[in-house]
Amino acid sequence: MGLFQDKRVVYKPVKDVNLGPHSTEFYFHDNVKAPRMTGIVVKIFTLLLETRVFRASILYLLKRNNLFHKLITNADLEDSPLYVPLHHFEDHREQEVKCIDHALTPQEQVQLSIDCLPTSSSEEDDDALNGKNSSFCRWTIMDYSRAYSSGDITPRMVAERFIAAVAESSKAQLQMGFFINYNTEDILRQADESTLRYQRGEPISVLDGVLVAIKDEIDCLPYPTTGGTKWLHKERPCADDACCVERLRLCGAILSGKTNMQELGAGTNGINPHYGATRNPYDTNKIAGGSSSGSAAVVSAGLCPVALGVDGAGSVRIPAALCGVVGLKPTFGRVPHSGVLPLNWTVGMVGILAGTVEDALITYAAISGEIPSNQPSKIPINLPLLPMTKSISHIKLAKYGTWFNDCSDDIRRCCSHALNKLQDLYGWETVDVTIPDIEVMFRAHYLTIGSECSTSLDSFREKNFAELGWDTRVALNFYSAFSSMEYIKAQKIRNRLLQFHKKILAEADVIVSPTTGVTANPIQEDAIKTGDFDYPNAAALVRYSISGNFLGLPAVTIPVGYTELGLPIGLQFIGKPWAEATLIHLAFAMQAICMPEYRKPAVFYDLLRENES
Amino acid sequence: MGLFQDKRVVYKPVKDVNLGPHSTEFYFHDNVKAPRMTGIVVKIFTLLLETRVFRASILYLLKRNNLFHKLITNADLEDSPLYVPLHHFEDHREQEVKCIDHALTPQEQVQLSIDCLPTSSSEEDDDALNGKNSSFCRWTIMDYSRAYSSGDITPRMVAERFIAAVAESSKAQLQMGFFINYNTEDILRQADESTLRYQRGEPISVLDGVLVAIKDEIDCLPYPTTGGTKWLHKERPCADDACCVERLRLCGAILSGKTNMQELGAGTNGINPHYGATRNPYDTNKIAGGSSSGSAAVVSAGLCPVALGVDGAGSVRIPAALCGVVGLKPTFGRVPHSGVLPLNWTVGMVGILAGTVEDALITYAAISGEIPSNQPSKIPINLPLLPMTKSISHIKLAKYGTWFNDCSDDIRRCCSHALNKLQDLYGWETVDVTIPDIEVMFRAHYLTIGSECSTSLDSFREKNFAELGWDTRVALNFYSAFSSMEYIKAQKIRNRLLQFHKKILAEADVIVSPTTGVTANPIQEDAIKTGDFDYPNAAALVRYSISGNFLGLPAVTIPVGYTELGLPIGLQFIGKPWAEATLIHLAFAMQAICMPEYRKPAVFYDLLRENES
Repeated sequence: MGLFQDKRVVYKPVKDVNLGPHSTEFYFHDNVKAPRMTGIVVKIFTLLLETRVFRASILYLLKRNNLFHKLITNADLEDSPLYVPLHHFEDHREQEVKCIDHALTPQEQVQLSIDCLPTSSSEEDDDALNGKNSSFCRWTIMDYSRAYSSGDITPRMVAERFIAAVAESSKAQLQMGFFINYNTEDILRQADESTLRYQRGEPISVLDGVLVAIKDEIDCLPYPTTGGTKWLHKERPCADDACCVERLRLCGAILSGKTNMQELGAGTNGINPHYGATRNPYDTNKIAGGSSSGSAAVVSAGLCPVALGVDGAGSVRIPAALCGVVGLKPTFGRVPHSGVLPLNWTVGMVGILAGTVEDALITYAAISGEIPSNQPSKIPINLPLLPMTKSISHIKLAKYGTWFNDCSDDIRRCCSHALNKLQDLYGWETVDVTIPDIEVMFRAHYLTIGSECSTSLDSFREKNFAELGWDTRVALNFYSAFSSMEYIKAQKIRNRLLQFHKKILAEADVIVSPTTGVTANPIQEDAIKTGDFDYPNAAALVRYSISGNFLGLPAVTIPVGYTELGLPIGLQFIGKPWAEATLIHLAFAMQAICMPEYRKPAVFYDLLRENES
Repeated sequence: MGLFQDKRVVYKPVKDVNLGPHSTEFYFHDNVKAPRMTGIVVKIFTLLLETRVFRASILYLLKRNNLFHKLITNADLEDSPLYVPLHHFEDHREQEVKCIDHALTPQEQVQLSIDCLPTSSSEEDDDALNGKNSSFCRWTIMDYSRAYSSGDITPRMVAERFIAAVAESSKAQLQMGFFINYNTEDILRQADESTLRYQRGEPISVLDGVLVAIKDEIDCLPYPTTGGTKWLHKERPCADDACCVERLRLCGAILSGKTNMQELGAGTNGINPHYGATRNPYDTNKIAGGSSSGSAAVVSAGLCPVALGVDGAGSVRIPAALCGVVGLKPTFGRVPHSGVLPLNWTVGMVGILAGTVEDALITYAAISGEIPSNQPSKIPINLPLLPMTKSISHIKLAKYGTWFNDCSDDIRRCCSHALNKLQDLYGWETVDVTIPDIEVMFRAHYLTIGSECSTSLDSFREKNFAELGWDTRVALNFYSAFSSMEYIKAQKIRNRLLQFHKKILAEADVIVSPTTGVTANPIQEDAIKTGDFDYPNAAALVRYSISGNFLGLPAVTIPVGYTELGLPIGLQFIGKPWAEATLIHLAFAMQAICMPEYRKPAVFYDLLRENES
């Protein structure tokens, strides 16, 4: 049978694989093979890829060179396919956490989350507002809520400053590329309504009057949902708020506009050929990361304390890390996805970008509580029960050293330092582990998200794909290169990797890693038009993200320091299914350690203080 | 983009589709386009299909001619993909039924099922045994159990008669093709153990000493599991009993051997080139149907009161109907699949072939109770609680007339007649409905089971596929012709069809249809070597089976009559998820009506009476 001559790769049964520190499973430093391309070369390559004659051969070579054949197509493995990484809540109920009943309103959920905030942050009251803290700290939801309640400032005033700030950030000298759409009239109307509520002494929740930006992949009236394209909103009109947006609106939040994003989420640099590259507030010559680039950047720049993103391959955590903010990707299924562009079905999850952990927690409480159709019971929300103290019971962190260290020197030093401080302060234990087949998981995930995205957009192929950016066109062509057998094998690999992670997470509470392998890289001028074809850099950006998406595990990134050039560095905790409370708990602990050294971005808007807006 | 020029087919949103009797959705009589091939033509075709040069073009034509491109590849539909048809038990809990706790042992489960038997069958005692009934009736589990308990006969005696009967059926003049493997020594050992238990007055359950045959797709010691091939058992040794077999063994059943089957389950005629065609006990020149051909035939011929099969595309129900026995395919996930050849993951289910409904019920109770890894709660077993009386509360039967009638005249007349009698007797109501997109579901299911089977067997492709029969080789080549996008679109169609069925089953208790579109067709001499390439006939056989598999719905087939030539005809009830109790209840009612006319097969062994064995 001449067709199937490639060498087969037989995977060891899971039970025979050693996950300990002295495992013989080797770490595969992933050398993505693709030339960096620019300008006319990209266009010729794309057009060739779309011809009947060359397409098959080019795709074959791309797949072969990037080891898809070796690691997936010719893989022999005995695991059953796992198609949807939905975990049973009851099997993973966290101890020592508050479970919020799903029957509560979003406002009630938010109120309960306030009770879970560490006492320190709720007591320091106006310290941050008055600049008493030595370190930089972004205004939090509670800061806004207190300022509104005291009457010192109104949502209307903040909204006006926001609008002025966005206008300024869009001018020729900055071109921050924060938003794809924002409607001043709509923002002011919401602000006025909120102002009235505060005047009547009846704010709906602490989120009342707080600006929240929404990634342009999530439906939010009165805006179209472009998904970063020039056409998708025409083919798929936005008829209603997405469920998560509706919940924020019910809490009184001001929906402040639709943030910029990588086109169709098909990359992680945040460079959009139609709406501009989102620039990093810490260094405007650098990328913000993606695909939720605008959501990370507006939080980083102080325009909104929180924003929503969607994380299908690190798309919340990567820009959060690059922009120095907190990024939370909940467990698969935790947040309803109705009203989110269905670019994939089994890897994406709405996530939260926030200036602080407490704001991530409050927003998480507002939007969580999914009732997936194929999930038996409704899923309560887990919130951390205990205030942060040094006496918090033993937490075990799993660390895969070789993987952890596969990043830039700056990141390795900074993340190791932060982790050591955390251990020293709380006496928590780190266990050394080996996570096998990470490079296989990458390809299986790519094949999965690619196949799903390609299917999702297939009906627009003929009519609209020519309007896409060149990098997205290349991606979507590659996305459609896989067979049903390869897709199913990828799901077998999903099951295999989940089993590895479950075993590791049975011995430890979280897996700790850097969030990205590199910090924000420069925006190349030639990339703004054709997209950035720098795949090796892209691979380094997503190096630590994939288990969160492919296996449905929750994950959080916290800023833990800066490079010598002042670019933010993120540390990531990956948790057990449904164990967001543990992650948030750890994030609070880490934030308490690192916050004294937090730095203000080069581009920052102080909406609570008049002069700076 | 020159690659995608085919016309797109836009599917109406589910909510806009009329499922009532006057729907404008048209019924598509499925004209499968494939020439009937035999002998050398088959071989040339297969070899061409396996060449690099012609493969792609042949597969393209096969897909196009059979409307895969039109109905799936170019389909635009908004439904999300449903990958696994696992239904939440709590959403579908049946009223008025007994739920057996999953923590019980199989023996205890069996004992409880006895209490659910209609009073009539447990009272008539030895009537059947003594031939008092005018109609033909196979020996039931209770018949064996009573005969053993009375001491009139022992399991050892029955086992000896069984062995003699199988030997006789294998002789040149019959060549029934019942078994692939049976081990007289092992059978007699089990029989002796059971005999001792009865002598001590300590039978384990009513299944003690009862012969049960197992399809050769299910692991059962001491036999290899061939899957109908000549090689699979060498590559995948059978190390243990499958879970369902282990449960039967715990009940004291005598595992009587591995029944013949269509090679790898890849067809429905039951003609196996390596182990012979299974012959129909009602007419030995006709097929038994497949793929669980041997399991249906041994029950039909009286060799075992029950047998296990596996149903991935009607593979239990089709041979049951053709051989005039009861076939029960439980809800997806109801019976554990550990130890069943993983030929697919999302459509197959262990099923039961039995001479009577009561035996199907007892066996169902013994083997049910799955704990799937991705299912939240453990699944109790539903058993009918009420004895069969005419007062049984209103049952509504949904009937799609055009589909119901798309079968041979014999079948249409017979099934309509049986259904009318059932309605008349119990006053049950039939509602006319329209089930749209049945022909789309067929292709989506074929694509799914094909992709899964192809993936499952991929590691054997190079080494072993040349040893397969010609028809299986052609099937496996076609199975590997699909893209990941086509696979995902098939899952979108799965969700779409499930929504249609859920709506219909919200208004009715069951959907009623014939079990097959044709009765047993002749075994062509030329087909025994190369396989039967009669795809139009195959399509008629599976016409009513697919929703049970693709949507995970339970279904049962009951013999309701015979053609003029004396070939059995089956009627099918398709139920709501987890509603086996309703199905069994209906089956009891239908059996009570039809049993007086049941006929004895041409080949029949009377193991409880000495002369006839």
